[in-house]
Amino acid sequence: MPPAPLLRSGKSNRTTDSPISYFIKKAIETPGLISFAAGLVDEGSLPVDDVRVAAAEILADPLTGRAALQYGSTQGLPELREQVLQLVCTADGVKPADVNLTAADVCITTGSQQLLYLLGEVLFDPGDIVITEAPSYFVFHSLLVSHGTKVLTVPMDAAGMRVDELEALLERLRRSGDLARVRGIYTVDYFQNPTGLTLAVERRKRLVELARRFSTDHRIIVLEDAAYRELRFTGGDLPSVKRFDTTNEFVVYTGTFSKPCAPGLKTGYAILPPDLMAPILHLKGSHDFGSANLSQHIAARLIASGAYARHAEELRAVYRHKRDVMLNALGAEFADFPAASWTVPDGGFYVWLTLDGIDTGPNGPLVPAALEAGVLYVPGEFGHVPDESGSSPSNECRLCFGVATTEQVTEGIRRLRKACAAVSASKGAKKVPAGV
Amino acid sequence: MPPAPLLRSGKSNRTTDSPISYFIKKAIETPGLISFAAGLVDEGSLPVDDVRVAAAEILADPLTGRAALQYGSTQGLPELREQVLQLVCTADGVKPADVNLTAADVCITTGSQQLLYLLGEVLFDPGDIVITEAPSYFVFHSLLVSHGTKVLTVPMDAAGMRVDELEALLERLRRSGDLARVRGIYTVDYFQNPTGLTLAVERRKRLVELARRFSTDHRIIVLEDAAYRELRFTGGDLPSVKRFDTTNEFVVYTGTFSKPCAPGLKTGYAILPPDLMAPILHLKGSHDFGSANLSQHIAARLIASGAYARHAEELRAVYRHKRDVMLNALGAEFADFPAASWTVPDGGFYVWLTLDGIDTGPNGPLVPAALEAGVLYVPGEFGHVPDESGSSPSNECRLCFGVATTEQVTEGIRRLRKACAAVSASKGAKKVPAGV
Repeated sequence: MPPAPLLRSGKSNRTTDSPISYFIKKAIETPGLISFAAGLVDEGSLPVDDVRVAAAEILADPLTGRAALQYGSTQGLPELREQVLQLVCTADGVKPADVNLTAADVCITTGSQQLLYLLGEVLFDPGDIVITEAPSYFVFHSLLVSHGTKVLTVPMDAAGMRVDELEALLERLRRSGDLARVRGIYTVDYFQNPTGLTLAVERRKRLVELARRFSTDHRIIVLEDAAYRELRFTGGDLPSVKRFDTTNEFVVYTGTFSKPCAPGLKTGYAILPPDLMAPILHLKGSHDFGSANLSQHIAARLIASGAYARHAEELRAVYRHKRDVMLNALGAEFADFPAASWTVPDGGFYVWLTLDGIDTGPNGPLVPAALEAGVLYVPGEFGHVPDESGSSPSNECRLCFGVATTEQVTEGIRRLRKACAAVSASKGAKKVPAGV
Repeated sequence: MPPAPLLRSGKSNRTTDSPISYFIKKAIETPGLISFAAGLVDEGSLPVDDVRVAAAEILADPLTGRAALQYGSTQGLPELREQVLQLVCTADGVKPADVNLTAADVCITTGSQQLLYLLGEVLFDPGDIVITEAPSYFVFHSLLVSHGTKVLTVPMDAAGMRVDELEALLERLRRSGDLARVRGIYTVDYFQNPTGLTLAVERRKRLVELARRFSTDHRIIVLEDAAYRELRFTGGDLPSVKRFDTTNEFVVYTGTFSKPCAPGLKTGYAILPPDLMAPILHLKGSHDFGSANLSQHIAARLIASGAYARHAEELRAVYRHKRDVMLNALGAEFADFPAASWTVPDGGFYVWLTLDGIDTGPNGPLVPAALEAGVLYVPGEFGHVPDESGSSPSNECRLCFGVATTEQVTEGIRRLRKACAAVSASKGAKKVPAGV
């Protein structure tokens, strides 16, 4: 007898598999494949020794060992929250009091992803509107679909989100009466996933001004996802959007130890307006009443010993080199391919490749050609929200140089070029010259 | 200018602070207070050395160290999922294939709490019905309130949930047409939080039969919360409810390493019917795409080395002794107090104390009297769902002997007796003889 059907919730029915699951599965199943798809970190530079020393020190002393192995609090380890506050404020060149913050405004989460989810759960009802950059982080888009949220987008240029376009959009929404449904504006403002682009400093300030100005009847929260901030390898650090929210009212800042330290700790953090903290903690209490405490103790010890800062510095050199290898490879392989252009990130680990005239989408010809050639990328389409006609730009690729070795980066770009050539040749190479 | 108001989601508005936050805050603020309130584990027996050795071994080798510090998968470490399957099936005296299970049916979560939340998110829409024991785990009740679920309860006796009463309730719901809204039945079936009671074996089998029989139009899922199973110190282990779900259709089994190993790892697990696994993983992908990987590698190593089993055995002796100390203290202090009765748990760390004629509720006289005497308990009321008139049984206390030392347990019970005496005296000691 077949089992009686399982009835699932509205939310569950809205929640689908991650669009890149297929790609990750392919990467695992295909031996010798070079993957630029998964946003993993560089394997060789993971701080195995630093974590070994930190864990050994914590667990050598019964007092600190027991503290790390007992339950922690829902909000997170006070020592780590204080350290996070200092790290972010130091990077922003302010004292916490200058921007109206204390460690009570910091929450530790299971990676910064958990904060993205919790914030959505606290703020968004089905039918509410959230504004993101186009393109944006596709996992966040999936999460918004789970919450039943409507996504509107703002285009980007080399200086990140076009805040003039944001202003125009907010004005249009005000006129149409839909401003009442706008709950949040999401930006990945440092070396964005997926484009690698960074929001210019004057736009950061302007973003807070817009949130304030359009928060007439209710507050519009800016969610600043600073996951890659510490991985800057060119130019000086920029102040956060949060830096300009000096009353701690409009901006939620999220960061993580996954990128500049170790994903295996799965420890992220957020700085929140005080009236958002309690609702977030109430829900987090139902989710897990606190993220892994041992991980938090390890992160706190790494920061206190200086190992964290030293390691982040080393990582910057690692990723700068890998970026340069990827840019050099792109320059060399695609020199005779005028349809190709790409971003030059100042940090993080994503290059955004545009291939005019080639359909890079999941159902287009480049994906199988790339697999055939032995390389994998994330179709740029996944970062876009389809327009009213259901279509998205489909000639872009996210290339992650995080996890591949430098040899693989060079070889992977060569293979991608070969795949482009195959696709161009098969369509008669009208728009795109054949190569390799 | 005051900030524009924050509009929160329906779910956020339904989600309140944990009822025991006030009690935890009190415990922290009051020096010298002995707390039987928090469900923490024994501090002195935390496996600091075992975890130190496991972490050192993992991180001494760059290969295993990097694997532990990189991202894991959403479903969790394959090795640990296989170990969990073997542990549960061995405890149940079956081979995985006998009960239609493989490691693909196991998911690793951020404590078992996260699974409780995720399952609720997947199954329950506002207005759906979930059936729990009365009393039940108050954090689960809070979570159901978040999800907007209606809670119906079934009384317990010394053999756990009254499955005859469950059957009668399901029949009534069928007749009233409400069976269509019943989505789940929740049981903490080993040394229940909060009563310490265990579900008898014949009732376990019957529970699965009832779920199957009443799953005519849609499936009713039994959520078996086995968080305390490994902490049995009297009698032999009982097969799980899951053991009787030989087709893997009706029962979700959750367990945790927090209780028998270390809460600081925040690692739990679940065994799920296959058509529930995908929806759970899709949502977990949005929550965090995988729990802390380092913790999972540590748990797997502790199991593989035998340290986990050895430590759980040691813990059983620790908690048996602490339970005996609490029972002896209760017997000695409350011998002249016929209004008091209590459960005798075979495992876990809760004793359920009933004080006829004394209001133990959060607004009753015993809470301040106990605080005055220097002891804290959880009012039993928190474990109950108010009936139609809004009232709950309010003469019960949950006493946790998990975290207090044996000296504190003895002294704490003495203080509780003193508080009872003070309350009885102030009400004229009509029903209850004064003491101490």
